[in-house]
Amino acid sequence: MVVLPVSKIWTPELHVTNGVQTTMKHGNKDLLVHSNGTIEHMVIMNTVVGCEVNLYNYPFASDFCAIGINVWVFSGCGMFLNFGKVSKTSANRGDWLTEEVELNAKGGRDDRNYLWVSLKMRSENPFLSLVLPSILIIVADVVSFSLPLGGGERISFKVTLVLSFIMFLIILNDLLPGGGQCSPIIRKHFCFCLVILVLSTLQSMVLTRLAKCGTLWPCSLSKSKDSLLKDTDNEEESKSDIKASEEEKNTALQKVVKFLNKMAAQDQKNAIHHRFANKVDLICFCIYLTVLIVYAVVILYFSFGSQCKINQLDFWS
Amino acid sequence: MVVLPVSKIWTPELHVTNGVQTTMKHGNKDLLVHSNGTIEHMVIMNTVVGCEVNLYNYPFASDFCAIGINVWVFSGCGMFLNFGKVSKTSANRGDWLTEEVELNAKGGRDDRNYLWVSLKMRSENPFLSLVLPSILIIVADVVSFSLPLGGGERISFKVTLVLSFIMFLIILNDLLPGGGQCSPIIRKHFCFCLVILVLSTLQSMVLTRLAKCGTLWPCSLSKSKDSLLKDTDNEEESKSDIKASEEEKNTALQKVVKFLNKMAAQDQKNAIHHRFANKVDLICFCIYLTVLIVYAVVILYFSFGSQCKINQLDFWS
Amino acid sequence: MVVLPVSKIWTPELHVTNGVQTTMKHGNKDLLVHSNGTIEHMVIMNTVVGCEVNLYNYPFASDFCAIGINVWVFSGCGMFLNFGKVSKTSANRGDWLTEEVELNAKGGRDDRNYLWVSLKMRSENPFLSLVLPSILIIVADVVSFSLPLGGGERISFKVTLVLSFIMFLIILNDLLPGGGQCSPIIRKHFCFCLVILVLSTLQSMVLTRLAKCGTLWPCSLSKSKDSLLKDTDNEEESKSDIKASEEEKNTALQKVVKFLNKMAAQDQKNAIHHRFANKVDLICFCIYLTVLIVYAVVILYFSFGSQCKINQLDFWS
Amino acid sequence: MVVLPVSKIWTPELHVTNGVQTTMKHGNKDLLVHSNGTIEHMVIMNTVVGCEVNLYNYPFASDFCAIGINVWVFSGCGMFLNFGKVSKTSANRGDWLTEEVELNAKGGRDDRNYLWVSLKMRSENPFLSLVLPSILIIVADVVSFSLPLGGGERISFKVTLVLSFIMFLIILNDLLPGGGQCSPIIRKHFCFCLVILVLSTLQSMVLTRLAKCGTLWPCSLSKSKDSLLKDTDNEEESKSDIKASEEEKNTALQKVVKFLNKMAAQDQKNAIHHRFANKVDLICFCIYLTVLIVYAVVILYFSFGSQCKINQLDFWS
Amino acid sequence: MVVLPVSKIWTPELHVTNGVQTTMKHGNKDLLVHSNGTIEHMVIMNTVVGCEVNLYNYPFASDFCAIGINVWVFSGCGMFLNFGKVSKTSANRGDWLTEEVELNAKGGRDDRNYLWVSLKMRSENPFLSLVLPSILIIVADVVSFSLPLGGGERISFKVTLVLSFIMFLIILNDLLPGGGQCSPIIRKHFCFCLVILVLSTLQSMVLTRLAKCGTLWPCSLSKSKDSLLKDTDNEEESKSDIKASEEEKNTALQKVVKFLNKMAAQDQKNAIHHRFANKVDLICFCIYLTVLIVYAVVILYFSFGSQCKINQLDFWS
Repeated sequence: MVVLPVSKIWTPELHVTNGVQTTMKHGNKDLLVHSNGTIEHMVIMNTVVGCEVNLYNYPFASDFCAIGINVWVFSGCGMFLNFGKVSKTSANRGDWLTEEVELNAKGGRDDRNYLWVSLKMRSENPFLSLVLPSILIIVADVVSFSLPLGGGERISFKVTLVLSFIMFLIILNDLLPGGGQCSPIIRKHFCFCLVILVLSTLQSMVLTRLAKCGTLWPCSLSKSKDSLLKDTDNEEESKSDIKASEEEKNTALQKVVKFLNKMAAQDQKNAIHHRFANKVDLICFCIYLTVLIVYAVVILYFSFGSQCKINQLDFWS
Repeated sequence: MVVLPVSKIWTPELHVTNGVQTTMKHGNKDLLVHSNGTIEHMVIMNTVVGCEVNLYNYPFASDFCAIGINVWVFSGCGMFLNFGKVSKTSANRGDWLTEEVELNAKGGRDDRNYLWVSLKMRSENPFLSLVLPSILIIVADVVSFSLPLGGGERISFKVTLVLSFIMFLIILNDLLPGGGQCSPIIRKHFCFCLVILVLSTLQSMVLTRLAKCGTLWPCSLSKSKDSLLKDTDNEEESKSDIKASEEEKNTALQKVVKFLNKMAAQDQKNAIHHRFANKVDLICFCIYLTVLIVYAVVILYFSFGSQCKINQLDFWS
Repeated sequence: MVVLPVSKIWTPELHVTNGVQTTMKHGNKDLLVHSNGTIEHMVIMNTVVGCEVNLYNYPFASDFCAIGINVWVFSGCGMFLNFGKVSKTSANRGDWLTEEVELNAKGGRDDRNYLWVSLKMRSENPFLSLVLPSILIIVADVVSFSLPLGGGERISFKVTLVLSFIMFLIILNDLLPGGGQCSPIIRKHFCFCLVILVLSTLQSMVLTRLAKCGTLWPCSLSKSKDSLLKDTDNEEESKSDIKASEEEKNTALQKVVKFLNKMAAQDQKNAIHHRFANKVDLICFCIYLTVLIVYAVVILYFSFGSQCKINQLDFWS
Repeated sequence: MVVLPVSKIWTPELHVTNGVQTTMKHGNKDLLVHSNGTIEHMVIMNTVVGCEVNLYNYPFASDFCAIGINVWVFSGCGMFLNFGKVSKTSANRGDWLTEEVELNAKGGRDDRNYLWVSLKMRSENPFLSLVLPSILIIVADVVSFSLPLGGGERISFKVTLVLSFIMFLIILNDLLPGGGQCSPIIRKHFCFCLVILVLSTLQSMVLTRLAKCGTLWPCSLSKSKDSLLKDTDNEEESKSDIKASEEEKNTALQKVVKFLNKMAAQDQKNAIHHRFANKVDLICFCIYLTVLIVYAVVILYFSFGSQCKINQLDFWS
Repeated sequence: MVVLPVSKIWTPELHVTNGVQTTMKHGNKDLLVHSNGTIEHMVIMNTVVGCEVNLYNYPFASDFCAIGINVWVFSGCGMFLNFGKVSKTSANRGDWLTEEVELNAKGGRDDRNYLWVSLKMRSENPFLSLVLPSILIIVADVVSFSLPLGGGERISFKVTLVLSFIMFLIILNDLLPGGGQCSPIIRKHFCFCLVILVLSTLQSMVLTRLAKCGTLWPCSLSKSKDSLLKDTDNEEESKSDIKASEEEKNTALQKVVKFLNKMAAQDQKNAIHHRFANKVDLICFCIYLTVLIVYAVVILYFSFGSQCKINQLDFWS
């Protein structure tokens, strides 16, 4: 979106160089010949420039794009360009704002002129559709620690969060171009989010088991319950031939009480497991929060504090 | 879709300017030379115009598109255009209706003519596939407050709603072009919907915990239950050596009653927590409804009351 | 896929007009000059025609496409076309069948000839991948009324149906082009399906609440249960100082019976709520079925009985 | 990927015909003029051929593609082609293997030469990403009959299977081109899979209801339970004024026993329903398996045994 | 991205050959004629090369691309190319790094020169978005064995994992090009992951049934429970006419005890089933882990140890 004033050129010989792909269309082939022999000629070039933009800080990216303009000069013989003033138009359109355009020359050489276009991304939309949801999902994961450990709710909730997150990964893959030299840091952010979501799901699964049988080893879950039942069974059989009605009644009642007591003992054992699992859960939650806070600081530093530079003039090695 | 009658031009010198990308194809290169020296020539230009349309009110968008038409005139020497009548054809096709076409001149200058094409979007389809589902999902979220707080149903329902909503975000990202100067307000609407859905899910999670243990702090859930069991256990052990049959029977019965009473006390405690959580839930529901109503008014105002203007003639700065 | 025999033309001046976009490639530039001065010349034009097809009855769409063929004739001076026989080739390929091709002239005018190509869509694939799944999902929704109201199964099933349906909306949006003048009725069909699915989910949610607490107002759920517990509690405390062993035993037993009775009363109350909710559910089901049947009749009428006409010749206004 | 040696042609007049779209680029415009007047000239044509390939047996598709090569000959006057040897290069690239290339002439006519290119698809990838998952999902559906009928697990499992399957439909729609004359049989396969998955889900839903209340008619679920409660309630009220302590105790105990008996009767009734539903489930499972086996035989026959022929030379009608 | 210095050529006759598709644009048509008759001419060719890259080790792929450069020489008469030094520029852009460029001649023949460009993929992004998630999902599947067998949690968790995995398959299908000669091994990896996920889900389903009824045959689930109820029922009926109050009381109490005993026996039977299922589950888990470890070794060997070679010069057969 740059109108470039050039004067006195041999029409089709102007080059726009930036190393990737350039389409150049001449607008007007009229000539205005003055009486003193000078020729006035106006060229409107619509140039499609393939410029590799640095997306490291995406969606807060801003970068420069160098557009080399040169003519063919060989051992003093050839054409010379006299550049006029450079101005910009329609700079406020599309996803990228054209902030400024300057005409520079590389290394002071006369034949290495380039336009230095500084671009800035509109970061509102990608922030709303990529960064915000990832924050929301992480917050939902943090709050899901408040769900009780025992039931399947917490696990199914966390799995659904992971599923939702994968959906956003699909959107991201549609929106973001492939890496290049300065791979956008938001990819690593999403990757970290996925890992932390999966880890917190795994932690919930392991603690659910811990809360149910007190150990991570297999087979201990059903044994204790089983022994209780066997015990009651055996007692019952051994005393079933006693016929004293009063004693029997008492025995029957005592048996019910014994059953209740054993159930209570079982419950107490479970409660101990549960309390233990809850404590471990609390510790995990604290570690999780700490990791998130440290990560937030690190990602903010890398997003805004650091930068990844691309040498935009490397087509002139 | 505009047939433009121009007369007496030097064929390939007409420019169609709107700053983004223009393709111009000449249809017919025949000439009709009259005996008095005037040349009749007919040009059919199929012009592809890249016009940045204001999508602020999408899917109720309507905008103007300016197509500059100029020839090369330099210090009084050059070509002049005599414009005839402008008419439109096939205006009723595609997603955009061409409502009217006018020929204007910018600032009264003779060499700054442009076609002022007013376009209107067909809003039926995007309304049905984007706006309506978002309303349906929000309504489903409101009604889901009627689900009981305790079971996992409400939470799993709300998480599935969030997941469904993310699906629609994927459709939206396919349908909608990137921001530009006037970013469509529907993006913010979807963003708000996502936030409100996630918040209401979080609220349900927190209140589920509140209903279960009466406090948001950890570890209090299993303690009370545990003490009940311990208590029964100790009592049982201290009295197990008494042998009086009648008393034992009574004690056994009393124990059962005591057990029932303790369970009742426990239940009552839970019920108090539950009632408290239900009250908080009701308050949250009222706040939620209020926020939704206020939001509905605001979004309706911004969608229909306000407008975002793009200077369509900024290619002539 | 039309081979058009034209004779005696000035090569690059034939126009194919249909208002959207036309690409014309000449195949052979050889000339055969006969001794009597006539020139024989064969032109094979590969023309890409952008024809707005009426998709109103999609996937059972069939439409006509008009391709205007004209040369430049101005006040009696210019070229004339002698059309030979029109035949078609490879008419049976791709998603659209070319059924017939006719050469017509608009309004009997000699210079307004056009090819009238009648096309028919292959409706098998879109029927299988769009219409059939929507019918299956609606049938699954109808049958899901057989799931019990109380548990979370029916709600989670219906939410998953809604989610599945949204998946199909994504496929639809990939397959179907944007609206145009005659927006395909299948969009409205999908829209209706979505609305009816969401409504039936909402109905299930509301009736689940109704089955649980007998009213749609909040807070009544836990109160009754709570009062039962309080009552038992108070009674127990007032009588705990009575020491008569026989009476105590009786009281204890009576208490158990009272507890059972109260629980039975509570259950009965719940059962009344449940029965009421089941009746409302049955009524809703009948309404739902009626709406579906009426809708089926309406949509069949609109799909096959009515038509939406596009004026395919409006490029000649 | 065919290098075609042609000799003695008038450069731009060679036609490559296959009815859809052809791009022809000349490589070299140099001429070598021998002293005896013959001109040697080498043409490298990069031709993009749009050939409708028969995808009926996809992903095990293999087909032929006819590329017509002709020059303009009119009543004995024109050009003649002397074809040399045809060889192929880079035949092993991309998704399709070029198996053989032959030069034929249609109907023995000299001016109807065509290249007969036989292509074979690499079926490994589509088999792995389309056919295998569909088989896996169907197997999972078969095995899911082992899940108990009562709980919501089977239904939620089957619904998730349906959802997963719809995901694969989305992949299929991305991978597969639209129908054409020989619509790929895999579409029908996917369609059948979807129908069978939905039907088995519906069967599970209906049998869940059958297991719960023994009939498919509404309202019978809660009645029996309700009558039990009412009964107990009435009995209790009628006997509450009896004061005999011993009898009361007995009555109380008897009541408990009665309650247990009634519960047992209720349970037995449920068990009868359950057993009945399980039997019906077993029958459905057998029918389901039979249908799947029959279907497997039929689809294997249609995939490998039958073929759908396309007349690849119909551009020469 | 290669600047190729060629000197003394007849401008439009240079060929860039690699068998798929080549676009060549000349930059500058100026000539510098020296006094001694030599002509200096500079050509900047922007060439789009379609090179089939070996993606076997994707995302750790690296390959060579051969770009043939030849002129037309026929029986000693034609043009000759004098190649200068080859240097590269902007080699560090995009998804592929240009590591080195060499100018070789095939078989020492003078007219078979080619540029040998060695490329390396940036493997960071595809690793993060494809390989890492697949590892995470497999790990989650392994850990999910810690979830209890009985409840529906494990099955619903595993199904959701399968669903999430299918999501990644969709991303993979977007990112990866179709097979070709060396189909990327990552496709087989994903395929294996899907199979193993489905198999582990099936195993969980079968073991859930085993834990519930001790056998995989149908109908045994409800029978035992039913017999218990019938038994209690019959006993009750036969003894209901005995009127002795003391005995009745005892009988009533005994009945309660008998009920409890039978329930205990039932529970014990269930516990035996459960323990058996848990043991089988443990064995399956060990097999599963072994398979995964063996697979990991195999896939690492195939990814890094083996290679798939493509003959990049086969356009010169």
